[in-house]
Amino acid sequence: MRNFSDTTLSNRTEHLVIIGSGWGAYRALRKIDQSKYRITVVSPKDYFVFTPFLTGASVGSIEDRAAIESIRNQQSGGMFFSDNQFSSLPHTGLLLKANTTIPVISNSSSLLASAIPNAKLDIELSYDKLIIACGAVVNTFNTPGVSEHAHFLKDVTDAQSIRSKIMSLFDEADIPGTSEERKRSLLHFAVVGGGPTGVEFLGELYDLVHNDLSRVFSKDLISHVSMSLFDVAPKIMCTFHPSLVEYTVGELQKRPFISIRTSTSISKISKDEIFVKSPKEEIVPYGFLLWATGVSPSQLTRSLASSPRIEGRPVIDSKSGRLLTDAYLRVMREESSKSVPFANVWAIGDCAGPEYPPTAQVAKQKGEYVGSLVNKLHLDNDINENRKIRPFVYKDRGYMAYIGKGKAVVGLSVIGKDLRLFSGKFARLLWDSAYLSMLTSWRNRVLVPLYWTLASWFGREISCIKKNPTIK
Amino acid sequence: MRNFSDTTLSNRTEHLVIIGSGWGAYRALRKIDQSKYRITVVSPKDYFVFTPFLTGASVGSIEDRAAIESIRNQQSGGMFFSDNQFSSLPHTGLLLKANTTIPVISNSSSLLASAIPNAKLDIELSYDKLIIACGAVVNTFNTPGVSEHAHFLKDVTDAQSIRSKIMSLFDEADIPGTSEERKRSLLHFAVVGGGPTGVEFLGELYDLVHNDLSRVFSKDLISHVSMSLFDVAPKIMCTFHPSLVEYTVGELQKRPFISIRTSTSISKISKDEIFVKSPKEEIVPYGFLLWATGVSPSQLTRSLASSPRIEGRPVIDSKSGRLLTDAYLRVMREESSKSVPFANVWAIGDCAGPEYPPTAQVAKQKGEYVGSLVNKLHLDNDINENRKIRPFVYKDRGYMAYIGKGKAVVGLSVIGKDLRLFSGKFARLLWDSAYLSMLTSWRNRVLVPLYWTLASWFGREISCIKKNPTIK
Repeated sequence: MRNFSDTTLSNRTEHLVIIGSGWGAYRALRKIDQSKYRITVVSPKDYFVFTPFLTGASVGSIEDRAAIESIRNQQSGGMFFSDNQFSSLPHTGLLLKANTTIPVISNSSSLLASAIPNAKLDIELSYDKLIIACGAVVNTFNTPGVSEHAHFLKDVTDAQSIRSKIMSLFDEADIPGTSEERKRSLLHFAVVGGGPTGVEFLGELYDLVHNDLSRVFSKDLISHVSMSLFDVAPKIMCTFHPSLVEYTVGELQKRPFISIRTSTSISKISKDEIFVKSPKEEIVPYGFLLWATGVSPSQLTRSLASSPRIEGRPVIDSKSGRLLTDAYLRVMREESSKSVPFANVWAIGDCAGPEYPPTAQVAKQKGEYVGSLVNKLHLDNDINENRKIRPFVYKDRGYMAYIGKGKAVVGLSVIGKDLRLFSGKFARLLWDSAYLSMLTSWRNRVLVPLYWTLASWFGREISCIKKNPTIK
Repeated sequence: MRNFSDTTLSNRTEHLVIIGSGWGAYRALRKIDQSKYRITVVSPKDYFVFTPFLTGASVGSIEDRAAIESIRNQQSGGMFFSDNQFSSLPHTGLLLKANTTIPVISNSSSLLASAIPNAKLDIELSYDKLIIACGAVVNTFNTPGVSEHAHFLKDVTDAQSIRSKIMSLFDEADIPGTSEERKRSLLHFAVVGGGPTGVEFLGELYDLVHNDLSRVFSKDLISHVSMSLFDVAPKIMCTFHPSLVEYTVGELQKRPFISIRTSTSISKISKDEIFVKSPKEEIVPYGFLLWATGVSPSQLTRSLASSPRIEGRPVIDSKSGRLLTDAYLRVMREESSKSVPFANVWAIGDCAGPEYPPTAQVAKQKGEYVGSLVNKLHLDNDINENRKIRPFVYKDRGYMAYIGKGKAVVGLSVIGKDLRLFSGKFARLLWDSAYLSMLTSWRNRVLVPLYWTLASWFGREISCIKKNPTIK
């Protein structure tokens, strides 16, 4: 095991390690005063994914890199990334190869150890403060076949895969001599999970087919397209206001080839068939399947609680599998069968705090909170003596979903006032401007509105860039 | 075998089949009058690659899709593409799976047959006129290990692979504890082939390292970077004017970490080592290797000449392996041991006409020529009776290469005048404007200059998007 310490830095600079690069990690990273901290980010990705733009990137409304922002640009030194081998687990969000070496968080010696398989060495990374923001993974509910055959929408690589998959399905269905039945199967786009992600994907896919593909493929071929939205719950978008749900369902059902199948549970997925268990047993052929249900804890989060090597083991919520945190988002640990917080370890985002939903909004606010907090705690971990430090308070700003055909549904929470509801084309403008205002990269601030404009003027770029399977 | 014929079209519309989607095919496609022809393009790609921009796309000077233009946007019907399975041969340019079913070109019945493996059916595609523009493949000169370990720069997928490979090498070298020797090996970027592609890649790579990576990685890490340009010839860029070569070599050698190794031949490539045969035997470790030598005929071109099933077999030049064509670029065939042209089959680009070099410029001019020609030959294949038809004449416009640090070398041929030579920053402006003027997509006309501007203002987008190995 090798020791990684940078002795050239002044003693006044503490070392802060952030695990993860999602909403929580990235927002914390941007808040932290780099004159006070030397920062090391440990993540399989060197970029932050602006998740609301993934659906757009998956149909070419924007280009893939407009949905990400480089983390490297945020700071000048001390970056550290786990390598290639982790990319073989693209959908897990797994940061450290927990199976090889159990990550060790030791309160006394402040060490984090992980295995870097390609480099064939273990890294010992000391820290003064640690922020765990390793996210969560897609919950397949142990449905057989999902990991192998379904697409997800967590990373920009997922969006790239989907974009080329859609086009290759149209290509295949367009081969002369393809049977009617096969055309219908190939062009059946199924979405499992009626939350905002699933609905937004359906909306964007509808736009792609309606505005762009219908111009280059024959009417006959387009007439074979169908889209289904499956949800096990009796209604879709259960976190949205009922009137917005009603509007959304009405809009979607107006579109000829979309069907909504609520109260429907799925027992198995094969390469090209969905096995529906209830309301009645049925086998539904499909060409493309997006699995957009909830999240479950990553292997890393689980291993933190189960490893016998961890001193002062973090406490995990038994139901959600998320790390328990105190009012200042510090990770709770067991000490002589009592729960006390680590003084210098925080956990934010989907891996922590079961009291809040696992959303980007929560992770963003927690990241900003912890970023400000550690700035105040420079060279000092004692929160009690710092009278100005307030506990984390979540401010619910509402919700938004694009539903296709230039329309969106938006519920805005203004503090002290009622929820304000918007739907239709004006809501789409709110959607656009809300997300544009959240971008932090100037590059994307320029490119995203331009991509939207180009897509509406000239259509989306629909070339099918097939993946190069020879990874060198 | 199934028959593909569209009976809804008027009798006045002839069916034109184009094999390929490169410079020749795309330029022909754009010239052809679609009121006269129903066009079917057969290609593993549904896009044209603007090859001069691939080097830029491989380092992030532009985004990947700015280096391609969709073929689907060029016409409204009758498109036809070979499918997935061909994408498993990304570097071959192979269009039809010649090993499964030998493509048949029959002069009498006007048929082209190919196998579509995934669809498990054979397609019979009748044509009135046929343009063969299937390109060529990278010539590895049968050097062992090249296909497995070297990168190429023929398709936009190659540029994507290179972009992520470069970043992952820097990542790996940056892992704490990596030995000095290993850092140097990982950060040795080798280019084999001193033509314009190899030189432009070195130039762009230099810019990436010098302008962008040096801002995010430590000085120590950057000091381990080296770049080598290998060529078996005694000098690089042998088609360029000697004074431009001298300027280029001088510029490259001024840069600290670039070395030019001419008169050097390579016997073998392993995963991380180059086996140099002469001038002296030597093993050179590397992290990345671009193979940018010449081209050789694709399997399809070869199979056209060797298949016993072809009636009136096309004649192949024995030395270059390219199809022989007449003055009107019609494919020559054997008839009672004489060579006569097919009346309705043309061949253009790298697969044909050994009298011209296999360059984009030649393919482009031939494509435009054949496009105009077939417009004149609508419902009539007899060239002799059409007095206004002139044979193809190639007009050499000169050459250009970007060499990094905002500099280029340009030799402009103006008809009736001497070659005019330019080098340095002004030549770079010529390079930019010449290529921008060749773009045919409005989307790219807007985006490419913007990408260049954004790269110079904010730096290149350097996130490492690792390939998603699970192809679904």
